[in-house]
Amino acid sequence: MLELLNSDFEVVMVAATAEFLAKASLQGVADVIESTPAELAGIGGFQTNETALAVGKMKPNSSFAVAEDEFALVLDDIRDPGNLGTIIRTADWYGIQKIIASEETADFYNSKVITSTMGSFARVHLFYTPLSEYFQDSSHRVFGAYLKGQDVHTIDFGKGGLILIGNESRGISAGLEKFVTDKITIPRYGEAESLNAAIATAVICDNLKRGW
Amino acid sequence: MLELLNSDFEVVMVAATAEFLAKASLQGVADVIESTPAELAGIGGFQTNETALAVGKMKPNSSFAVAEDEFALVLDDIRDPGNLGTIIRTADWYGIQKIIASEETADFYNSKVITSTMGSFARVHLFYTPLSEYFQDSSHRVFGAYLKGQDVHTIDFGKGGLILIGNESRGISAGLEKFVTDKITIPRYGEAESLNAAIATAVICDNLKRGW
Repeated sequence: MLELLNSDFEVVMVAATAEFLAKASLQGVADVIESTPAELAGIGGFQTNETALAVGKMKPNSSFAVAEDEFALVLDDIRDPGNLGTIIRTADWYGIQKIIASEETADFYNSKVITSTMGSFARVHLFYTPLSEYFQDSSHRVFGAYLKGQDVHTIDFGKGGLILIGNESRGISAGLEKFVTDKITIPRYGEAESLNAAIATAVICDNLKRGW
Repeated sequence: MLELLNSDFEVVMVAATAEFLAKASLQGVADVIESTPAELAGIGGFQTNETALAVGKMKPNSSFAVAEDEFALVLDDIRDPGNLGTIIRTADWYGIQKIIASEETADFYNSKVITSTMGSFARVHLFYTPLSEYFQDSSHRVFGAYLKGQDVHTIDFGKGGLILIGNESRGISAGLEKFVTDKITIPRYGEAESLNAAIATAVICDNLKRGW
């Protein structure tokens, strides 16, 4: 809620307690409605909420540039909303603010996605685009997780690039492999066949940033 | 399915196609039923399954010892079944085979837990116990994630110990803090307030193992 007010989303309505309204900065909000905790609890969607509720406008699906010295995530069909939300939250923790997603990736505005970002949806930018075309027009290094790649504990990630995260079941699409400039691997010490997509993202981000 | 047959779970029934049965090792299975793919698809619970289905016996909640040179996870009220399953899968990836869970932690045999372990439930042992009593009787180092602790990128985890993972909303219970011998912190490079519990577990495990 506060994240939304502090973001670049346009907030069209805020319903909140008198106490909250007295403290909040609500410049530019068209509709402000003073409400009781009971009223707010009644409208809330998926979480207990007795203080404030805001309605933000969805943003158009607009592209952004990724700088040469910046890391961004590229999601190849992450279909589970919980995974997408967790990836957005994790990206925000690691200071990665841009995500490029294939058109088959879960919907950013799905309520399960928004909830599992824990507020990070307001700080991380995501746009949907066909990934082959995107890679064709990009000059960045592309890091992709494969079974036999360079160890993420020792590879030099450099100063920027795209981290390609594959689909939950099939990994990175065969058609995208040719765009991967650096195959990487998270070392395995036990027996699980693979890691969850959001978990793999986090481990890669942690290794990416620790060198800085 | 194969994980279950290769585990220490007692398998009481297997229904499978003739082709599968010809190849499988089914010693000790009381009931073996040859079935068609269509029949199997009809019984399957939560995933497409046309080859084989096994019924395993739940194991009693029995404790185990953690060796001095071994790492184990301790879960303080991980309530979300998806998180628990992902933690079990992640532990299995990192070669951690033992998990001690508070009694408020999600049920190991919940179908969402089993599914999200992706087979790792058959290799990772978990038991439920009141954590205060458990810690009182333990002589291990206890690593717990807090906002201001030693950086997981630089701390020496040593050869063994317990990794305490806090609840999704409130972190580690206040009552357990006195048992934590080593407060640790995952460095943050961006703005998210916290990490998902399974994500934090993975990042800690990755840092734990990389020194080896």
